[in-house]
Amino acid sequence: MKLYEKLADEIEEAVRRGVFAPGEKIASVRQASQQHGVSIKTVLHAYAILESRGILETRPQSGYFVRAKPHAGAAHSQPKRVIATASEVDVSRLVLSTLRSIRAHDAVPFGSPYPDPEPFPWRRINQYANAIARRQSSWNLIDDLPPGNPELIRQIARRYAENGVPVDPDEIVITVGATEAINLSLQAVAQPGDTVAVESPTYYAMLHAIERLGMRAIEVPTHPAEGIDIEALAQIIGRRKIAACMVMPNFQNPLGFQMPDERKRQLVELLGAHEIPVIENDVYHELYYGDTRPSTLKNFDTKGLVLHCASFSKSLTASYRIGWAMPGRYRAQVEKLKFLNTLTTPSVPQVAIADYLRQDGYDRHLRRVRKLYRQQSRIMSAMVERFFPAGTRTSAPQGGYVLWVELPERVDSMRLYRAALDSGITVGPGYMFSTRNAFSHFIRLNYSYPWNAQSEAALQRLGELVGEIGQRAGKDANMGERA
Amino acid sequence: MKLYEKLADEIEEAVRRGVFAPGEKIASVRQASQQHGVSIKTVLHAYAILESRGILETRPQSGYFVRAKPHAGAAHSQPKRVIATASEVDVSRLVLSTLRSIRAHDAVPFGSPYPDPEPFPWRRINQYANAIARRQSSWNLIDDLPPGNPELIRQIARRYAENGVPVDPDEIVITVGATEAINLSLQAVAQPGDTVAVESPTYYAMLHAIERLGMRAIEVPTHPAEGIDIEALAQIIGRRKIAACMVMPNFQNPLGFQMPDERKRQLVELLGAHEIPVIENDVYHELYYGDTRPSTLKNFDTKGLVLHCASFSKSLTASYRIGWAMPGRYRAQVEKLKFLNTLTTPSVPQVAIADYLRQDGYDRHLRRVRKLYRQQSRIMSAMVERFFPAGTRTSAPQGGYVLWVELPERVDSMRLYRAALDSGITVGPGYMFSTRNAFSHFIRLNYSYPWNAQSEAALQRLGELVGEIGQRAGKDANMGERA
Repeated sequence: MKLYEKLADEIEEAVRRGVFAPGEKIASVRQASQQHGVSIKTVLHAYAILESRGILETRPQSGYFVRAKPHAGAAHSQPKRVIATASEVDVSRLVLSTLRSIRAHDAVPFGSPYPDPEPFPWRRINQYANAIARRQSSWNLIDDLPPGNPELIRQIARRYAENGVPVDPDEIVITVGATEAINLSLQAVAQPGDTVAVESPTYYAMLHAIERLGMRAIEVPTHPAEGIDIEALAQIIGRRKIAACMVMPNFQNPLGFQMPDERKRQLVELLGAHEIPVIENDVYHELYYGDTRPSTLKNFDTKGLVLHCASFSKSLTASYRIGWAMPGRYRAQVEKLKFLNTLTTPSVPQVAIADYLRQDGYDRHLRRVRKLYRQQSRIMSAMVERFFPAGTRTSAPQGGYVLWVELPERVDSMRLYRAALDSGITVGPGYMFSTRNAFSHFIRLNYSYPWNAQSEAALQRLGELVGEIGQRAGKDANMGERA
Repeated sequence: MKLYEKLADEIEEAVRRGVFAPGEKIASVRQASQQHGVSIKTVLHAYAILESRGILETRPQSGYFVRAKPHAGAAHSQPKRVIATASEVDVSRLVLSTLRSIRAHDAVPFGSPYPDPEPFPWRRINQYANAIARRQSSWNLIDDLPPGNPELIRQIARRYAENGVPVDPDEIVITVGATEAINLSLQAVAQPGDTVAVESPTYYAMLHAIERLGMRAIEVPTHPAEGIDIEALAQIIGRRKIAACMVMPNFQNPLGFQMPDERKRQLVELLGAHEIPVIENDVYHELYYGDTRPSTLKNFDTKGLVLHCASFSKSLTASYRIGWAMPGRYRAQVEKLKFLNTLTTPSVPQVAIADYLRQDGYDRHLRRVRKLYRQQSRIMSAMVERFFPAGTRTSAPQGGYVLWVELPERVDSMRLYRAALDSGITVGPGYMFSTRNAFSHFIRLNYSYPWNAQSEAALQRLGELVGEIGQRAGKDANMGERA
């Protein structure tokens, strides 16, 4: 790779991570030459590449600026410093009806939260399952009482250990998907009526857990590249009693960021200082686009206050519903609640996954999928830029398979959702990710499915709908002004 | 069948059902001859058979009496008319540790709550599952969002309809076993801190649901043959606010009774008059020993207050964890809570069971299993009578596969549980079935496993242990009196 290409990539990455905000002026050619220790010619070349990529723009007499709508820049550049009030939660009806709409088999599943099963090794997993289920012993419920199948627990602990997260197998409790793990973790640490701090936007399963237990959510501003705003969280903690915090530090759904290690450490320290337990939803941890698996909050936890939740649903099979919790000092409570909630997790899926992990090419599969999703994230971003009207901005996912799209402010995402459904296309409306309608003009798009003529046509149609709804809303506003 | 045999069976059945209490004098030969419209000779013959069966005894100059320890008479003849105070609930640790003890593969599983999988059609079910899982479409999570797989729901509704329970398929919500159905049903109708009326003894899953939600249980005296004492329940309702009632009208675990239809109707009417929802746990409904499938509370429900819960775990496969709720007027809440609790129930098991129900011999399988359990209930009762010391009494299960055994009062069931475990035998201690230690000298025995030399030796050893513990407790008591 040429030196100017390397420099261009570095700057692009910095923009993606939000180091430079849209509209911000960046170093002059001369300054950059000194900072990076390269020639002026190399910087000029790199800046030219970034211009052509749509990352930078020049302004006459002013220099180089980050484009207001970067090619794949952060969807909303600055966390809003509004300290929210705690709200009662009821987003589940909207989410359920949205997910149901995806059921229609011919609908284009941009709104799906689940990965396309096609590139997953479901045939191999089923072979293991079938081999296991041929033995009568596997039909005996009693073997897999909580905490779960010992061999699966061992395999999960091994993977963490290999990736630098020290895990005691005895800490792991197998659950019915990460959903149950999150529910049990929250119930273990907080009571009905308590206030729980969440990211904003947040993954709706967090809101569901809070709703189910009759708690209140307080939404904390969240940076699209760095994660939850730790200062804002500290202010909230200073003002009121927070029973727990729920975050998704890696490839947050919907923003897609990876919290930098230093921020993870700061978050764990802040919460630890106040003895506030934190529920870490890490279901996308295997789907990173970088070179190494990201750290988890667990890496920085010295007090046992991190309740880490994950599953195989995003990286191996969603339909088995196998998740787990590593609840730190709350392990006994979570295990007991698991027993009370669903008694046991079915055995055959547990053993089938354990066999697959031990014997088959999980890492090879993951490398393939990571590459695929990274490629498809770029295609989806580029296509949104191509087909959506001016004023649209997109996130820069660093893992996972969802893109967060900020539409022009006049475009209500529920209106778009309904219009899209009429055209056989599903989207995830922003309303699902907050209790405060803060993301009414945002949508979430799933790019785990392969890009083809059908998806391209669907995205083009979606872009047209965004334009139409925006124009109609504009006219309505004008009519209102005239009236 | 001869006339005298028929009469003997009828009287035996009446004793089993508690119509005649142990020690009670029954009709003289002359009276019985008139009542039943048969000859004196027929009555004499019938009474002789009942004497030989150990149901009746003659007392000189007095006539015929029901034996104080009937061959398979009711475990405790009269419900105690003690009105319990509501208690906080925490039996789950005991239950979990008991179930864990059964994990040891070589332990004799008298303590297991689960049916022996051997006579179940698990090979056929697995063939269906494997055929389904070979299709990629079955690895798509989105198809089986709550309420669940439409074909399985249809099959379940069909079975109810065929058995005289009118069911709207739209009322059914598929769950992770009956455990989840019960949990969601209770959460739909009651709040933390509320008081819930349960049977005494009660199936511990009911107590778990109450414990999980931070509610309080009030235990209602329950007749071993007729079910929950409706008058006692009415008194409780008159005195305090009851948020819900939880019962198991068919083949209650542990008592094994089938509530007579008239009692079911009375119960539904009493609760309906006070608008109190009732959670009906009907997991054993397919395992009746009589000629026809028993009615459910649903049959008598005109107000939508019955939340009916059931599963395939006791009659087809326990390891699939497929249950369902028919929550009456609470249907929308239960469906939403299902979504919040575990998102979906795995698809392949749902479709595999649906395929089996549609295409295979479920009714044939059930007829076989019912006959097996009926036979094994008699063997287990007879063997307990043979090996256990005087003062032991047993229930008369009318369905299911568990026997409730009342030991001599001095025999603490936890002490027996631990001693038995040392001998590689598990039992279900009575402490699991109440929050009040009311059944400290009771145990539950599972007879779903085939009777063989090993189980016979184990039961003999158990009888010896009961004797030893009783003698030791007796000595301790004497020592105490002397000291």
